[in-house]
Formats: sequence, structure tokens, C-alpha cells
Amino acid sequence: MIEHPAFTCENWKLHETELHFGVLAQTESLFALSNGHIGLRGNLDEGEPCSVPGTYLNSFYELRTLPYAEIGYGYPESGQTIINVTNGKLLRLLVDDEPFDVRYGKLLSHERELDLREGVLRRNVCWTSPAGRTVKVSSVRMVSFTQRAIAAISYEVEPVDEAARVVVQSELVANEALPDPERDPRAGTVPPNPLVSDEHQAHGTTGLLIHHTRASGLRIGAAMDHHVEGPDETVIESESSPDIARVSIIALLKPGERLRIVKFIAYGWSSTRSQSALHDQVMAALSAARQTGWAGLQAEQRTYLDDFWAGADIELEGDAEIQQAIRFSLFHVLQAGARGERRPIPAKGLTGPGYDGHAFWDEEIFVLPMLTLISPTAAADVLRWRYSILKQARENARQLGLRGAAFPWRTIHGEECSSYWPAGTAAFHVNADIAYAVTHYIECTDDTEFEQEIGLELLVETARLWHSLGYHDAAGRFRIDGVTGPDEYSALVDNNVYTNLMAQHNLQAAAAVAARYPREAKALGVSDDEIKGWKDAAKHMFLPYDERLGITPQDDTFTQHELWDFARTRPDHYPLLLHFPYFDLYRKQVVKQADLVLAMHLRGDAFTPEQKARNFAYYEPLTVRDSSLSAATQAVLAAEVGHLQLAYDYLGETALMDLDDLEHNTRNGLHIASLAGTWISLVAGFGGLRTSHGSLSFAPRLPDRIKRLTFRILFLGRRLGVEVTAKEATYHLLDGEPLKARHHGEEITLSPTKAVTRPIRPVKANPSPSQPPGRSPIPRSKRCQPRGG
Amino acid sequence: MIEHPAFTCENWKLHETELHFGVLAQTESLFALSNGHIGLRGNLDEGEPCSVPGTYLNSFYELRTLPYAEIGYGYPESGQTIINVTNGKLLRLLVDDEPFDVRYGKLLSHERELDLREGVLRRNVCWTSPAGRTVKVSSVRMVSFTQRAIAAISYEVEPVDEAARVVVQSELVANEALPDPERDPRAGTVPPNPLVSDEHQAHGTTGLLIHHTRASGLRIGAAMDHHVEGPDETVIESESSPDIARVSIIALLKPGERLRIVKFIAYGWSSTRSQSALHDQVMAALSAARQTGWAGLQAEQRTYLDDFWAGADIELEGDAEIQQAIRFSLFHVLQAGARGERRPIPAKGLTGPGYDGHAFWDEEIFVLPMLTLISPTAAADVLRWRYSILKQARENARQLGLRGAAFPWRTIHGEECSSYWPAGTAAFHVNADIAYAVTHYIECTDDTEFEQEIGLELLVETARLWHSLGYHDAAGRFRIDGVTGPDEYSALVDNNVYTNLMAQHNLQAAAAVAARYPREAKALGVSDDEIKGWKDAAKHMFLPYDERLGITPQDDTFTQHELWDFARTRPDHYPLLLHFPYFDLYRKQVVKQADLVLAMHLRGDAFTPEQKARNFAYYEPLTVRDSSLSAATQAVLAAEVGHLQLAYDYLGETALMDLDDLEHNTRNGLHIASLAGTWISLVAGFGGLRTSHGSLSFAPRLPDRIKRLTFRILFLGRRLGVEVTAKEATYHLLDGEPLKARHHGEEITLSPTKAVTRPIRPVKANPSPSQPPGRSPIPRSKRCQPRGG
Repeated sequence: MIEHPAFTCENWKLHETELHFGVLAQTESLFALSNGHIGLRGNLDEGEPCSVPGTYLNSFYELRTLPYAEIGYGYPESGQTIINVTNGKLLRLLVDDEPFDVRYGKLLSHERELDLREGVLRRNVCWTSPAGRTVKVSSVRMVSFTQRAIAAISYEVEPVDEAARVVVQSELVANEALPDPERDPRAGTVPPNPLVSDEHQAHGTTGLLIHHTRASGLRIGAAMDHHVEGPDETVIESESSPDIARVSIIALLKPGERLRIVKFIAYGWSSTRSQSALHDQVMAALSAARQTGWAGLQAEQRTYLDDFWAGADIELEGDAEIQQAIRFSLFHVLQAGARGERRPIPAKGLTGPGYDGHAFWDEEIFVLPMLTLISPTAAADVLRWRYSILKQARENARQLGLRGAAFPWRTIHGEECSSYWPAGTAAFHVNADIAYAVTHYIECTDDTEFEQEIGLELLVETARLWHSLGYHDAAGRFRIDGVTGPDEYSALVDNNVYTNLMAQHNLQAAAAVAARYPREAKALGVSDDEIKGWKDAAKHMFLPYDERLGITPQDDTFTQHELWDFARTRPDHYPLLLHFPYFDLYRKQVVKQADLVLAMHLRGDAFTPEQKARNFAYYEPLTVRDSSLSAATQAVLAAEVGHLQLAYDYLGETALMDLDDLEHNTRNGLHIASLAGTWISLVAGFGGLRTSHGSLSFAPRLPDRIKRLTFRILFLGRRLGVEVTAKEATYHLLDGEPLKARHHGEEITLSPTKAVTRPIRPVKANPSPSQPPGRSPIPRSKRCQPRGG
Repeated sequence: MIEHPAFTCENWKLHETELHFGVLAQTESLFALSNGHIGLRGNLDEGEPCSVPGTYLNSFYELRTLPYAEIGYGYPESGQTIINVTNGKLLRLLVDDEPFDVRYGKLLSHERELDLREGVLRRNVCWTSPAGRTVKVSSVRMVSFTQRAIAAISYEVEPVDEAARVVVQSELVANEALPDPERDPRAGTVPPNPLVSDEHQAHGTTGLLIHHTRASGLRIGAAMDHHVEGPDETVIESESSPDIARVSIIALLKPGERLRIVKFIAYGWSSTRSQSALHDQVMAALSAARQTGWAGLQAEQRTYLDDFWAGADIELEGDAEIQQAIRFSLFHVLQAGARGERRPIPAKGLTGPGYDGHAFWDEEIFVLPMLTLISPTAAADVLRWRYSILKQARENARQLGLRGAAFPWRTIHGEECSSYWPAGTAAFHVNADIAYAVTHYIECTDDTEFEQEIGLELLVETARLWHSLGYHDAAGRFRIDGVTGPDEYSALVDNNVYTNLMAQHNLQAAAAVAARYPREAKALGVSDDEIKGWKDAAKHMFLPYDERLGITPQDDTFTQHELWDFARTRPDHYPLLLHFPYFDLYRKQVVKQADLVLAMHLRGDAFTPEQKARNFAYYEPLTVRDSSLSAATQAVLAAEVGHLQLAYDYLGETALMDLDDLEHNTRNGLHIASLAGTWISLVAGFGGLRTSHGSLSFAPRLPDRIKRLTFRILFLGRRLGVEVTAKEATYHLLDGEPLKARHHGEEITLSPTKAVTRPIRPVKANPSPSQPPGRSPIPRSKRCQPRGG
């Protein structure tokens, strides 16, 4: 938990009123800026104090050898690790030769705010040096959504009472020292000094560093230029060495005088382009930014975000904390994906080194369903990245003795980077998850060009994988044995229901798209026999059922296993994976994260409402939510089966995962999927939004505390607005052609001329199932208001 | 395969008629000498050429950090690795200043023989130096069975045609250079230069080195002395440095003159004793050996072995190759265990660095059943070693959240050294295997002192483990979920039948022994309730059965899985583990090594004869024998269900595992369990010997090729001889009180006065089941005779 909540509850900002060193690492993540290409952690301008310095470029990684005490066939030999690249954020300040350092002297005030509409991080400080000189320092930092290669900082210093000589050293620094690696397997691992200098220069107000990595062979260029406003006598000096380019600005400021510096930073990287090409590339980007100027960049940023909020905003009456959290979530998910452009969305976005900067299945199952409905081009770009790594996925399948493509469990560049195969290679569901995101995107956008160019091949290759992975047993059932589902407290199970249902969907979707594009499918070698094989496998997909309990077991044998002894598990023994061996977790009934419950969300068509209720009631007391991916799904199903207060509590947990540091690892970066989960909880949970085969349905129903919920989505080229109150829901078609949809099962027609309002019948209040002792949804902090009764 | 079989087929020797560099590594293992405390690989006296230099002391290991790319709770942090200690075998020879090196000059003859009755390794060489000087060199090497700390070498040089100046440098060398580590996970890993010098000295004919290890903190002393016979002018010099002690003997030899050197080598190690105590200890051992003298040591060795062979020898008519192989096996198993004295028997004995020198379950299930019946004190010593590591096993259980003791899957000093837990920690059957060896030892010896002091606590602590590992399900069945059985091509399965049957036996045995020693059991905290719990668990032990196939599945779901595609598996893709991922092996029906079939051997009482036949027929086509542990068990069951020719073929495979290097890794040491398997195949297979609850039964039946088989065992203090021909079996009680036994179910009484002869009815010839394509028993080489038709 963030123990010193200095955040105020505001609608469009994350505002920190004072600086607490104890949560520095967390705020570095929360205040991170990114456009999906460049990521800057919210490190202080002057570099220190610092917990995790972080400057990232999407997919810029170094290789590291994966060690094994006992090697096995097919184990990946090297892993990819995102690295902290050249830091362009640095603006060190000296006041009368004393370094500006908030740990020394006296900090009179320190405020930071992330402005979600302007897309900037502001900081205002008033500080008295140990020698008694007082200065005001303010900075505004941005990573441009419109100029993808550009970050910029406006930095101002002003003495308060007496004149002061100030020196601002604006730097590019490569190979910064990093904190020691953690033992927590969820933290990342970074090799020291990963960058080798190719070129360094500094002239006048400019500086440039070019480096390359030793093993991955990637080259990075970083350049800076400055616009300086200060007294006439202001002096500018510059110098460079292999890992540092420095522009020093020296001014004697009288009270009332200000030194203002605008720093433009340009980044570029390439695996193939030459040093000189990269040099020119970053200098060109810098020129463009300089020409646009600070005011121009700010205006572009605001316009970009205005457009985003117009299609994506959510309003909520009755819970100011969640109102703030959902906008914070929308903003960070946008940041993670906006300008990735055929690059992955890592689990932490570009906000920290956690999970080595790898992308996982949560990209497709948690982030893309949201992005598809609020920023579809960003969603398509991520799937184009998957398409770009098909070659590696095919090779991976070959090595595993399978056909088609086997996408890696965790990766940056496409190769499998998981060294623990029972929770890596065996988690084949990632392939069906990608297929799900593909069909969801196509069904929500009708982007036939994408479907034909990208979707078809992704669906065909993943369907081939499933067809070769499973087999028809003596009874004709199609079994998928020895795989790991979403619940990482089980592994190597037979017929994980989530996996089988998602694979079934994958096989059906491939057969359907191949039928729509027979010529293109044939070019991929798809024969009628192959399509028949996919349909047969889908038709006979084995889905176990436990007659005794009357519920769907998570896998073939799950419900035969011993129940985890929750009564004897101490509260400080969570997350269980840090306190119990996998051996014990795997063989007992304990669920890390929604698995069968997730299947009921994504494949709701495969369960009756009664089954959903029974299954939810069975798994709820077994699910410990040791993964941040779980709460949102539980919120959705809790809402669907009528436990609205429980859904609301889960909403709180997913929404505040990072703002309250609920899993104690926000230091390593934000949980992008959990942030997306806030949206999912609200839109799929309380909005009851489901899309399937191009149809759109809602089943809205609010918990007591939320008086009004409005959300907007983009669907089949239309912009829709939905407004929900306790008693009714109103659907607005904001632009585009009329569209049919469903409200609680009733067909409605949305037209631009008139909003449609329908009543919401109160749900029968079922008693909510309980959670494992101590694992009910994490109680809300009291930042904005008392906890609802 | 050993491609240059220079071995002749002799009854009591392994005789190599010429030197082939291509199989140097294998012969280093085959010609290894050991007494269970000291192990010397069959390296050439002069040190080079050499494939794997090896001098080992049982349990003298160094620690190494076990690396993990993704750490998990409870993973062992460091592994123990047996290290090559101070080499005392070295006797370098210079002939007229040219080093004697068989790779240069001309090798006129080179013979080596391991004498199984004398317990020595002899070598005779005739060599012409590059300069044309011819010498005869002969050596006799021994590791004393009677003086545990002593090895000795008699070394002679004689010029053939003309006089020669010879220098013999007799050395102790620490930190020898080792070959590069292999990628094969079954090879060992050794840190470089593991020994740190404490003391070195050389005076006259003596030398001494004392070292310690860096991390494990063990100290080793090695000392040597020499008895020299040569011309009067023979000069002796000595010198030492931290890693070398050297005694140089210089003589000018005329033709007909010989230089003869007897080198006495003493070893000692300790984890606690001081440097000076260790110094004195090895010097004292050296003094005793010197006093005994070479002839005395030889005589003691012969006497020791005569006694051994009198109780253990096996004679075989009709297959000279197997006759040689079984004696070779008996000798090496004796070497591995004779003087270990509360130390483990590693998988490779002390013959090589394979598997890091670790002991595994095969110690209890393959080696001890044999040792118990031919050298019971050695068997008891191994179990006393298990007793000595109970503390570590209890701690291991605690960390796993279990009660009782969880013995490590692989270890030297008692701590778990397996870094791959699905095939390490999860292989809990090792605990029942230890319990099995304990009860087998007690039942075969009636050693009540051992039972009370050692057996009781081992049985109680392992029973406690099982009781906490399994659970009674809703139907009352006692399930043991998520474990790995003997077949390492399945893992983390529910209710592995081998495990459950062995655990059942363990629980029953603990209940029985606790009832016999109520006072001692109470002192261990055993209550009546606890005993009742063990009995309940044993009674309700769940044993799955496949009604459709009418066979016992290896585990709950094994027979539901897809069959391995043997038709598409290329012959060079075995062993499968080096060519296919575990993920794929685990989820299909393919068996690495006897699992259910082993259960039918050790728990034959749990199956009817018809079930055994059906089960054997089912598993035989699925079993690829990628483990050297499998063939012997398949031989036993094949014989039991009537496939005598098949059993004979399996006997050949296990008997020749190392002599023919069938698994291509004899270089790293001998397969001690496979050697024991030769005995098991003959005695339990064709002799049909079973012991259970103090009763002894035989069901002898010979394959066509074996005309006569005799074997001897020690049972309840008696020495028995059994002689089997095609038509009848004769039982001799060689000493001791009369004893009841069974012959093919018929009770017979053995008395010292008269042998009992009973007829053997011919078995109904069933058609033998087939093996996977290309995986029928490995055809016999043609060393001794053509393959039987």
C-alpha cells in the first residue's frame, strides 16, 4: 500500500501535494509518461533521489543468457530484457554551487501532478539550500503523442529572496547505475552497462549520444537541444564523453528573474540502420520538434487527448475515487499503446523494468478488448506486431513438434523468454487469446483489410497449432492434455476448460475466416480437409463436468484434489507463490486468478446463467487473487450473476492496484492489464457489454454506490454513448449509421436522431459467496470518501 | 557402443588386449577401482592420455550455486558436486629423458586386466620411445578392501635391448585440469580448482598434501610413501609445492635389470578434524600399510574377495559373456558399497563424475536388494547413511509444508540438490523406496538391533510424510496427487500406482514396527491415533483401474492420453529427452522406464498373474528404456509372465550396459544400478526369488540359452545355494538352521543335511509383446559367441 497518500482526489489529475521518499519508487511509476514508443519514469528532474531510473524505448532490449542448473531440450537459451536507455530527462541544478537535492536543505513545498487532459507531468518546488538560498523550481514534462520520437521538458528556476547563481546541467546519460536486482521473480533483471558508445557530441545547445547493445545488436540514438530564456549574461557550455552529453546553462538570477529552459529530446533506435542514418534520424526529429516549439507541442498534445477523451471517457457519479482512477487508467492504457506501432504492449507498458519488459497474454485478453473499443488503430497495431513475429512462433511450434504457430509466453522480439516451461511453454492458451483478440477486433471494426492481410493468417496458424496439440480419444472427444491455463497455481493439466473453450473459438474462427477468403486461405495451404479437421475438433472439444458437485471443473481432475488449507494460511503468506512451493500449489484446489471464471466471461455462450452462478459460487472461495489480473474478471462475473456489491468491491481493487500499490510492486511499473481491468469492470461488468459475431449487447446494472455511469465506445465505425442509472439505461448513437443492439436481451435500434431509454429491473439479491479468509476484495482507502456501507 | 571391443571373454577377468584411444574414457570407468571410500578411475599410470581424470573420496564434495533464470519458493540454492581430489595414481616415467607416452613412439603391446578375484588392475606395456629405446612397464594397482584408507601400486620398468636411464616421478597432484563440461544433463558439473592448499611436504620417499574446499569446508589429506628396488646407484629426490608432492626415482638400468616401486597412498577427509589431526591420520594409515607391505595387502585383498565370492558368486552355463558380465557386476557393486560405512552409494559409485556424484532412489531399489542378500552389512551401512541425513530430510519436509521426513531426490550430504523440481522434489517415491529397502533388509536379516535403532525411525518418519502428503477424498479414498513416479516421461500426476503401492507398504510397515516397539515408537511421538491414521490411509489407498482397457493405468489419467507417435520417431531421436521437450513427453503415453511394471515386481502381491500379464503386455509397447534402470525390471516381469526369451534379451541389455557402453555415457562412470540389474535379472528374474515378510520363495525358470544357473544368497543368517536347470531346481542350505521356503508355490524345507530338488514345469509359451519400433532389447555384441537364435 502507498502508506503516505499525498494524492488528492481530482477528476482530471493525479495530484501529489508533498514528496514522500518512502513511496518514491511507486510515484516514479504512477507519474510515468509514455506514448507507447518512448517511456519516461517519473524520476525527479535532477536524477536524485531515485529508486528506479527509467527511460525506455519499446522493444529496445538486451539479451541475457538464461542459466539452468539442469538443462532440458528446447529450453530457451537467452532471454530479452528491456534496458534503461540514454536518460534525457536529466536537468541537474546547482544553486550557488550547492546541488539542488530535496534530501538536503529545506523543502518548503513540493507538488507534482499528472494532467490527464494536457498529457503532461508538472512539478513545482520551493526549496531552501543548506546555505539558506531559496529557489522556486518548476518543470513541465511531456512525451509527445503527435511527434512519436520526441519528449520535451520546460524547466524554470527563480530565486525567491536574494540573487542566486544557478547552473543547470542538462544531460543525456547512458549506462546509469541501477538498483540491485530483487529476489522477487516478478521484478526484472537488467545487465549492467548494456550500452556501448558509438558516437558522442555536444555543440552549443545540442548534444547527441549513439550507442549499441553488445548481444542484441540494437543501436540507439538520443539527441537534445535547448531553448534558453534567461538574463543576457547567461552562459551556455557543452561537452561530451562516451556516456554523457552535457549542456550547462549558467545564469546569475536576481529575485524576480527567471531562467527558463525548454529541452527537446529525440530518440530513435534500429536493428539495421547505420550509425549515421540513426544520427540523422534523431537530429531530424529534433529539428521538427524545435520548429513546432514548446507551445506547439503542448497544443498538439491537448488536441490529441481531447479527441481521445471524446471517444473514451467514462463518467461516474457517487465515487470520486473511482472516477479519478478510471481516467488515470484510460490515460495510462492509452500511453502504453498509442504510438507503439507494431510493437508489443508490455505488462508494465513503458513505466518500469518489471517482468523484463515482456508482453504476455494479458495484452490480448485485458488490454486489447478495451483498446479495440476506444482506440482501434492502436489495437490493430499490437496485432500487427503479433503478425510480425509469426516466423518465430512457427519456429517455436516446430521445435515443440507442433504445426502452425506457437506464440511465446513472454517476449519482446518474438522468441520465447520464459525459462520455467510449466508456466511458460505449457500455457498454450496465449495462442487462442491472440485469436480471440483478432476476432474481437474484426467483429468490432469490420476492418476487412486487416482481416484478410493479418487476421486470416493469425487465425489459420493458431488453429493449426490447436489441431496438432489436441487429439481425438477413443470416444471421439478432442482432448488437449498437459497444458497450463490462466490459473498459475495449477499446471500441466488435462482439458483446462478455459483453454479448450478458447481453442474451440479459435478453430471455429479460423474455419469461418478461411471460408470467407478461400483464395487467400488456399495460398496459406489450407485445404477443405484441414478446415473439416478444425470443425471436427471444435465440435468434439472435450469439456469436463463434475456431476457430483454440479459444476464445471477448471480441468479434468481439479475438483478431485485436496482443498487448500486456507484456515492455516497466514495473512502474510500471500502471495502464496512466495511462501509455498509450486509442487504444493499445483496439486491442491487453490486458484491464483480467474480461470474458469474468465472462461465464463469470454465464452459466456458456453454456460447457462444457472451454471455461471453455481460455478462462480464454487470458485470464489478458492480464488486468492495473487495475480493482479483476477479482480476485473471476478467483477464482471459477480455483476453478471447479481452480486453487485461484490463486483463493486472488485472494481475498487483493480482500479486502485497501482494508485494504492496493492500488490507492493508498483515500484517496478504499472499493471497495465489491471488498469484496463478498471474499464472492463465498469463497461463489461456494470455496463454488461458483450460483443459476439458483430452483435452488441448490454445488460447494465449498477451497484448502490454508483448513481450514474456513462461510457463511450467506438463500434463498427460508430461512436456510442451509454448512460446508466439505477432505474434505466439510455443509449446514444453519437455518430454513424443506425445499429441494432440488445438491452438485457431485448433488441433495440440505435439511431442518430433519438436516444433509446430502457428500464432496468432490479436484480434478485443473492447471497454473495465468500472468499478465502482474508482474501475478500482489498478494502478501499479513505482518500476520497468513507467506504460505502 | 564400445566400437573396438578389445575385451576377451574370460570368467574372472576383464581383459583388454590392446589400447584404443577412442574408448579410453569408457575403459577409465570399467577399470575403476574402489572400496566404497576411495575410488580411482582406470586412468593410465602416467596420467596422459586421459579422458576424465578421477580420484574420489565418498562424500567429498564442493558446493556450487544453482542458477535459476526464474526463481521459485523452496528451490535449492546450492548443489553438491563430487570433486576430483588429489591424484595419487600418478607415476610418470621418463626413458632417456623422453616421456613415456603411448601416443608417441611405438606401442608394441598394451594389456590391462581387472582381476575380479585378486581385486587388482594389472597393466603390461611394451613400448619403444621415439628415440628407439624399448622398455617393458608393468603395474598392479589396488584399492584395499581391508585397509579402507589405502591404495597401492606396484610399478616396474625394465629396458628390453639396451640400457636406459629411467626417471619415475611419483606424484600427488591436486587441482588437475578437467575436461570441458558437457551439455548432457546426465554428465556432472565440476568447479575448477576446487582445492585450497593447507600444507605440502616431501621428505625422502614420502610426500603429503593437505587441502580444503572453499565452500563446503571439507579438508582432505593425501600421503604417499614408496618402497624402491633398483640398482645400487638409484637416486631418490623429493620436492613439494602447494598442489604437488613429488618423489623422483632415477636409475640407470641395464637390460635384465628392473626398477620396482611400490607406492602406498593414504587418504583421509573430514569436515571437522583439524589439519594436524588429518595429517597424523593419513600418516598413520600409511605406516600401517607400509608395515603390511605389498604382498600382505594383496593377500588380504584375496581373502576378502574369496569370502565375498563364496557367498555371492553366480555361475551360468551357456552364455560366457553373461557369466563374465555378472561377475563384473558383482565386483563393481561390491566396490561401490563395501567400505562406504554410512556413506551413500552414488549412481556411478566412485567410478566417474556422472550425476555430480549424487545418490538417487536406485540405491534403495536396485542396489540394496542385491547387497542385502550378498553383503548385508554393507546394505545396513547405506541405510545408516539415510538415517544420518534424517535431519535434512525433516527440514526439507517442513519447507514443503509436510510432516515427517522428505528425503532428497539427489544428494551427497542430505540436502536436496535437484534444481528441476518436477522430476526432483515431486518424486516422493524415494521415501517409500527407502522404507522398502529398510523392511527388505530387516526381513532378510532379522537384524532387530538395526530395526529398533534405525528402521523404526526411518519408517515412522516416512509414513508421516505419506500421511501428510495424501488425503481422503469425498469417497474416502486416500489420494496422492501431483507427484512424479519412476517414469520420468510423466510428471506431476495423480495417484501414480507405483507410488501409491509403495506408500501403502511404507504405511503398513511403519504401523507394524511401531506395534513391535511400542516404547520406542512412543518416544518418537507416535500415538495410537497416528498408527490408526497410517492404517486407514493404507487401507483406503486409491489405485486407479482402467475398465475399458482392463489394465492398471500408471496413474489416474495416463491411459486417456494420446499415444506417442513412435512410427514418426527416428532411431537417432533416442533418448527422447535429448530430442523432445518435457512438455510433449509428459502429456503422452510414452514410458521412459519401468513404472507400473516395477510396481508389479516390488508389490507383486497387489496383482493377479492375469493382471500382470495384461499390464506387461500394455506397457511393453510404450516403454522406450531411455533409462538404464528399466531393462532389469522388464526382465523380471517378462520372466514372471512367461516371456523367457524376452527376459533373456533384457538381461543382456542390463548386463552389457557398461561393457558395451549401450547408453553412450559410460565415460562418466558405471551404471551401478544397471550392474545390480544383472543380478536382479538372474536371481529375481530366472530364479524367481521374492522375499516378503520374512518368507522366501523361488519360481525358477530358465531361457533356452542358459543351461544351468547357480546363485548364492545370505538369508536370515543362512547361506543358501540354488542350482537351476531347465527341468529342475535344487536348493542347498550351505550353513545355518533349517528354513522353510517355496518353490513355485510349493512349501519346501531346507536343511543342512540334504538338498531339496523339485521339478520345473515348462511354461506355456505366450506370444511376447512387442516394444516400440527400434526399441526392442539392444542386440548382443558378438564378443563371446554368436547371438542365440
